[in-house]
Amino acid sequence: MRPPCGYRGPVIVDCALYRDGRRTDSGTHWRQLRAEADQQGDFVWIGMHDPDEDEIHEVAEVFGLHPLAVEDAIQPHQRPKLERFDDMIFLVIKTLWYIDADDAVETGEIALFVGPDFVVSVRHGDGNELHSAREELEQSRKVLSHGPGGVLYAVIDRVVDEYLDVTDELVIDVDEIETSVFSNDRTNDSARIYVLKREIAEVRRAVLPLRDPVVRLASGDIPAVPEEATPFFRDVADHLARAAETVDSLDALLSTAFDAHLAQISVQQNDDMRKISAGAALIVVPTLIAGVYGMNFKHMPELSWTYGYPFALLLMAAAAGGLWVLFKRSGWL
Amino acid sequence: MRPPCGYRGPVIVDCALYRDGRRTDSGTHWRQLRAEADQQGDFVWIGMHDPDEDEIHEVAEVFGLHPLAVEDAIQPHQRPKLERFDDMIFLVIKTLWYIDADDAVETGEIALFVGPDFVVSVRHGDGNELHSAREELEQSRKVLSHGPGGVLYAVIDRVVDEYLDVTDELVIDVDEIETSVFSNDRTNDSARIYVLKREIAEVRRAVLPLRDPVVRLASGDIPAVPEEATPFFRDVADHLARAAETVDSLDALLSTAFDAHLAQISVQQNDDMRKISAGAALIVVPTLIAGVYGMNFKHMPELSWTYGYPFALLLMAAAAGGLWVLFKRSGWL
Amino acid sequence: MRPPCGYRGPVIVDCALYRDGRRTDSGTHWRQLRAEADQQGDFVWIGMHDPDEDEIHEVAEVFGLHPLAVEDAIQPHQRPKLERFDDMIFLVIKTLWYIDADDAVETGEIALFVGPDFVVSVRHGDGNELHSAREELEQSRKVLSHGPGGVLYAVIDRVVDEYLDVTDELVIDVDEIETSVFSNDRTNDSARIYVLKREIAEVRRAVLPLRDPVVRLASGDIPAVPEEATPFFRDVADHLARAAETVDSLDALLSTAFDAHLAQISVQQNDDMRKISAGAALIVVPTLIAGVYGMNFKHMPELSWTYGYPFALLLMAAAAGGLWVLFKRSGWL
Amino acid sequence: MRPPCGYRGPVIVDCALYRDGRRTDSGTHWRQLRAEADQQGDFVWIGMHDPDEDEIHEVAEVFGLHPLAVEDAIQPHQRPKLERFDDMIFLVIKTLWYIDADDAVETGEIALFVGPDFVVSVRHGDGNELHSAREELEQSRKVLSHGPGGVLYAVIDRVVDEYLDVTDELVIDVDEIETSVFSNDRTNDSARIYVLKREIAEVRRAVLPLRDPVVRLASGDIPAVPEEATPFFRDVADHLARAAETVDSLDALLSTAFDAHLAQISVQQNDDMRKISAGAALIVVPTLIAGVYGMNFKHMPELSWTYGYPFALLLMAAAAGGLWVLFKRSGWL
Amino acid sequence: MRPPCGYRGPVIVDCALYRDGRRTDSGTHWRQLRAEADQQGDFVWIGMHDPDEDEIHEVAEVFGLHPLAVEDAIQPHQRPKLERFDDMIFLVIKTLWYIDADDAVETGEIALFVGPDFVVSVRHGDGNELHSAREELEQSRKVLSHGPGGVLYAVIDRVVDEYLDVTDELVIDVDEIETSVFSNDRTNDSARIYVLKREIAEVRRAVLPLRDPVVRLASGDIPAVPEEATPFFRDVADHLARAAETVDSLDALLSTAFDAHLAQISVQQNDDMRKISAGAALIVVPTLIAGVYGMNFKHMPELSWTYGYPFALLLMAAAAGGLWVLFKRSGWL
Repeated sequence: MRPPCGYRGPVIVDCALYRDGRRTDSGTHWRQLRAEADQQGDFVWIGMHDPDEDEIHEVAEVFGLHPLAVEDAIQPHQRPKLERFDDMIFLVIKTLWYIDADDAVETGEIALFVGPDFVVSVRHGDGNELHSAREELEQSRKVLSHGPGGVLYAVIDRVVDEYLDVTDELVIDVDEIETSVFSNDRTNDSARIYVLKREIAEVRRAVLPLRDPVVRLASGDIPAVPEEATPFFRDVADHLARAAETVDSLDALLSTAFDAHLAQISVQQNDDMRKISAGAALIVVPTLIAGVYGMNFKHMPELSWTYGYPFALLLMAAAAGGLWVLFKRSGWL
Repeated sequence: MRPPCGYRGPVIVDCALYRDGRRTDSGTHWRQLRAEADQQGDFVWIGMHDPDEDEIHEVAEVFGLHPLAVEDAIQPHQRPKLERFDDMIFLVIKTLWYIDADDAVETGEIALFVGPDFVVSVRHGDGNELHSAREELEQSRKVLSHGPGGVLYAVIDRVVDEYLDVTDELVIDVDEIETSVFSNDRTNDSARIYVLKREIAEVRRAVLPLRDPVVRLASGDIPAVPEEATPFFRDVADHLARAAETVDSLDALLSTAFDAHLAQISVQQNDDMRKISAGAALIVVPTLIAGVYGMNFKHMPELSWTYGYPFALLLMAAAAGGLWVLFKRSGWL
Repeated sequence: MRPPCGYRGPVIVDCALYRDGRRTDSGTHWRQLRAEADQQGDFVWIGMHDPDEDEIHEVAEVFGLHPLAVEDAIQPHQRPKLERFDDMIFLVIKTLWYIDADDAVETGEIALFVGPDFVVSVRHGDGNELHSAREELEQSRKVLSHGPGGVLYAVIDRVVDEYLDVTDELVIDVDEIETSVFSNDRTNDSARIYVLKREIAEVRRAVLPLRDPVVRLASGDIPAVPEEATPFFRDVADHLARAAETVDSLDALLSTAFDAHLAQISVQQNDDMRKISAGAALIVVPTLIAGVYGMNFKHMPELSWTYGYPFALLLMAAAAGGLWVLFKRSGWL
Repeated sequence: MRPPCGYRGPVIVDCALYRDGRRTDSGTHWRQLRAEADQQGDFVWIGMHDPDEDEIHEVAEVFGLHPLAVEDAIQPHQRPKLERFDDMIFLVIKTLWYIDADDAVETGEIALFVGPDFVVSVRHGDGNELHSAREELEQSRKVLSHGPGGVLYAVIDRVVDEYLDVTDELVIDVDEIETSVFSNDRTNDSARIYVLKREIAEVRRAVLPLRDPVVRLASGDIPAVPEEATPFFRDVADHLARAAETVDSLDALLSTAFDAHLAQISVQQNDDMRKISAGAALIVVPTLIAGVYGMNFKHMPELSWTYGYPFALLLMAAAAGGLWVLFKRSGWL
Repeated sequence: MRPPCGYRGPVIVDCALYRDGRRTDSGTHWRQLRAEADQQGDFVWIGMHDPDEDEIHEVAEVFGLHPLAVEDAIQPHQRPKLERFDDMIFLVIKTLWYIDADDAVETGEIALFVGPDFVVSVRHGDGNELHSAREELEQSRKVLSHGPGGVLYAVIDRVVDEYLDVTDELVIDVDEIETSVFSNDRTNDSARIYVLKREIAEVRRAVLPLRDPVVRLASGDIPAVPEEATPFFRDVADHLARAAETVDSLDALLSTAFDAHLAQISVQQNDDMRKISAGAALIVVPTLIAGVYGMNFKHMPELSWTYGYPFALLLMAAAAGGLWVLFKRSGWL
């Protein structure tokens, strides 16, 4: 259990000073850490979770964050974007996670303020905790040596890996729908396809607008990202492209599945109609025979036969049976 | 209550001279204000509402507005656009507002003439009054210090925020349609989906063509926008992108909802057909039995039974009841 | 009535020499006008209508028009395009007009040869006469002072205004179709939607390829268009963009209307099926009752009742009436 | 009849040396022609038709053609493309022609090797013979004076003109389908629409990839095309754009026609269902009447009427007739 | 049988040192080969198949491969991509092959590390062995003389040729589906179309992202590809474009085929409904006749006719026969 970061409540979930690619043990209050980060290459990373306006403003003041960026970090529901303010950058990314219980995709948001010697991360929502990403980053001295850009990479890489986890789950969902559509059960798949399309649109809204920021980070033009860190961001860009492709491909596949579902409904209706018609024939033909022997002609020899009645019943049964065989053979029943 | 701006009727709804990031109390007639704006950084903002041709021409003459721009400001129903004339810019934006009563989106228009030391805003339509935007702007000395570019920002920011309000309402409408489509009620949702698609197309016509002007304003190449104001326009560009994404996403969702609606109709038709067929069977089978006992054979033992008649009725009831159970079990009834 | 332009028949519909932004009264034969245009800024405009090959070749030779351009001017059915030949430009635009009688869009074509000191316009088809455009141009000394580029502007502006008139008519047509689709009448709207989609495709073929030429004219790189004339072409480009947007929007709307039409057909079929089934039930249930009292059992008390027959008829009527009420309540009838 | 080009069989269909914009009469063997082409501006054009590998390799060796290009010229089924090898260019174009007999579009291929002083054309397939293109070219000294680039123009112009012929035929086919879809005949148009869509896809595969090569030829950057020849290629590019637009427009129209066809099927099914139901009512109502008079009540006054039987028949006829009128009026029959 | 490459198991499937465009016989262990490649133009090619992590890390260390690239080579399921690390390039390509047995497309992956004097290829999956590509390459001294770039070409060319084989098979599959859709058999083609669309999406995911890497290789900016090798990569780019076009075209064709399939279902349902109705009429009309002669009127002359009964039966048969002829003629039966 690390020492608390000197803030009331659990808002600042972690904070540390990094020097020479290592986490130092110095200081526990974030203001103190900030003050100690006075050597070349030092930087602090302060992680906040669901802060309220006052808390974020306090940090913003100390680090000199741009008011427009701070406002965006306070209010969730921003678009993923990368904004430059002089030597500082501001990044918003959507986080995604999959809830198995109801096959739903949930979204959160992480805002990152990255300056020459600090990173402030503001996370909204429950998913994609950053603690383990930080721990992993602290294992890799090489990435940490990229400074704040390394933190940026660690966070984005983690979030994009979660995207791939989510798309893997969606692939499974689409497979299930596919099986259901082409099964003989009369499942009403349209609602499920609709919901899944909605989830996919949600994922797309997180993935697609992030591509441009990541490509810019990989281009080497962003001051926080040193030249040797760009291959890492290109790798992330590639994973992001894979997520985007999967999502597009699933969406197209679902549209096709929906069309197939419509075709199945039509085919079933046709089958039903033929079954019903065949069944009706089994009743109305005997009814006609009964009608014939219900006629009142004086001269109807069958009527006076001793076995006329059983004969008529047999005739009906034979007619119905004959039709049955006929329809069975032609596939109508 | 501020003094009137020296014009007949309520055409010029407000006018003021801004100096050092503050609204001055000087002058009440707009010509006078124009004359007083003689210090570096001074500018006047004249707000007109539904002016007629003469009124606008009078102002145009004083400020030297380009005739083509004036013509566009007189006639509403322009496309959103940004036009440069030497050191002056002309901006047309569509305003949108949502009428709760009939779930409709209304559109208006604002034309802005922005010169080095003046802003003339011409508003058409009822929605999106600019008075509160002006008041808010007057609270923020920082934005006012951007000069006419600050007014530009205040107006566009206000209008784009209204776009987001409208898209939020549309999200609710789509949710309602979604619920209606997948409910078991036989609602005819196609008309509603159509109307909503129409509204969305209306919104899109306001939002999409505005993106290029805002991006140009954010690029820093427009003389009226000082360098330090560009982050504000980038923020607006981002909000606009969010509105555009929401609108695209809703449109796609509505198309899917429509397809699902079609599938629901087909499924219901199929259900109806099976229900009808099952119901018919409950009638025609007893009819056959009645037909049988209506035959005129001499030797039909049942006919002379004391309880032949009740027996026949029971037989009919039993046949109907048996079919009922059968159909209920197989889900046809 | 102006003097004839010295040509057999009505091929050269008008010709004039413009000097200092005014139409001169000099000369009546186009060759003579050409010869008189010897001062700086002078230019002639020769307007031809449906010329034959010889007539056009004669003019082409005098003005030194490029053979490929001349060939394109002779044969209608070209794409809108802007072609540069040294100091001369060649423009083809499609003209559109709406025929109220049969809700149809007709197309014609105008070819413009624009040199440093002349304009030759060649018009094919009946619509969009240029006479009034010329008269309007002659009122505006400012536009005329732009030289041949002013003529270019006057013609394109006129044609694009006609595009907007046509799209306004199409908007009305789409509104009518919309009303028809959602009315309860059994109108077969698919043919009408198809025809309108065809008209819209026609309009699109005129509008879309013209955008690039107009943007190039507005860019200031075309020698015939002086710098101060570019805002005029940007204005036209904007009107063109509006026409293109309207057309795209109508096309999308028609597709949605078509889908809604399909849904209406399905819903109506479903309604019909239920109405028919309910109607059938009103007949077959009394038929069953008649069948029951047609049975030949010896012991059927009702048969010997004095009012047995009316009782049976009443039973039938009651059954039918009961079903009627039932179906009415459930919305099947 | 020209002299043979010194090759076994009909592989080299024509060959000639061009000097000063004229075909010379010199030499008959292509190797000899090649040797004689020693003056500035001289060039030879060798035309091959369906050559085998050896024949093409022999020519390739003499003219120093690039092995990759030769391989592409041997195997048909290449994509249209323009490839530069130093001072030589290699062009592949698809040829199209329309077979009236079965409304089908056939495809062939022409490969052109164009060097500073030679053109080798290799044609595969039956359509689009180049002989008449060569004769026409030989009439136009101006185009011939462009050298090998003139040949290039003559061939592409011919091929693209054929594209326009093919699209004209397709327009007629689409018109026929349109008529068929909206006729009252029960034609099954879906197969025909499908086949036409396939043909259109075939045409698109020829037209679209050729646009980039032609634009590059028109840009003036290709050494074989002199500056004064570029307007000719821009003209071809324009024709190609027209073909592409027509094809796109037809494809969209066919999709709409298909949708309309689906709607027609639905409407017809609905009509049929109502006709059938009305027809059924004409039978079942008299059946009910017959059932009523088949009841065995002791006291049924009608049964003992002298004209009871005709009365009953009349009642049936009246019921059927009444329904007939009713259904006719409501449009069900 | 070549000597083993000094590795446990079959992981390194081949390795060789190439000098002066020839494979040398020197050395059998890859470390030894690496050491011997000390002359200008020498390079080694080491081919691995399904290596485990340790094996690949060992090779990576010797050749100094970038850790991110190595990680991507270990884990399959990467996107096709080209990555540059200083003087080294890393390429991932998807391999495709067609399994005839179940009409399925399988995918594998090849990762290539290309340095100034070495190529390391890492293949995953069963298809597209590289042995024969290597043998073919060793036959062509010209391509081998391009050094590691030649190997790159040989591998990509082989893989892209396989793409074309796969698309050829898909063309056949689409043809079969087409035949099935338009046959009169009641085949349920929607499942098959769905599966094929899925396969096509798979192919597209391999083909489309490879276009950008191949275009970059053909551009001449990649150090491993000498200027004289670029036409070869342009040729590959062209084949890739053909594969992409075929795939797009098949996908569009399948969508059309699916629509046609839907139309066929509707038409068949309509046919069935009419057949059923006609069949029903053949029963209910005789039933009405039987009902008529079952009426109990005292005065019904036919009842006492000697041949009344046969007359009635004949009447029924005549009615049914007449209807039969009628329906046959109108195409309902």
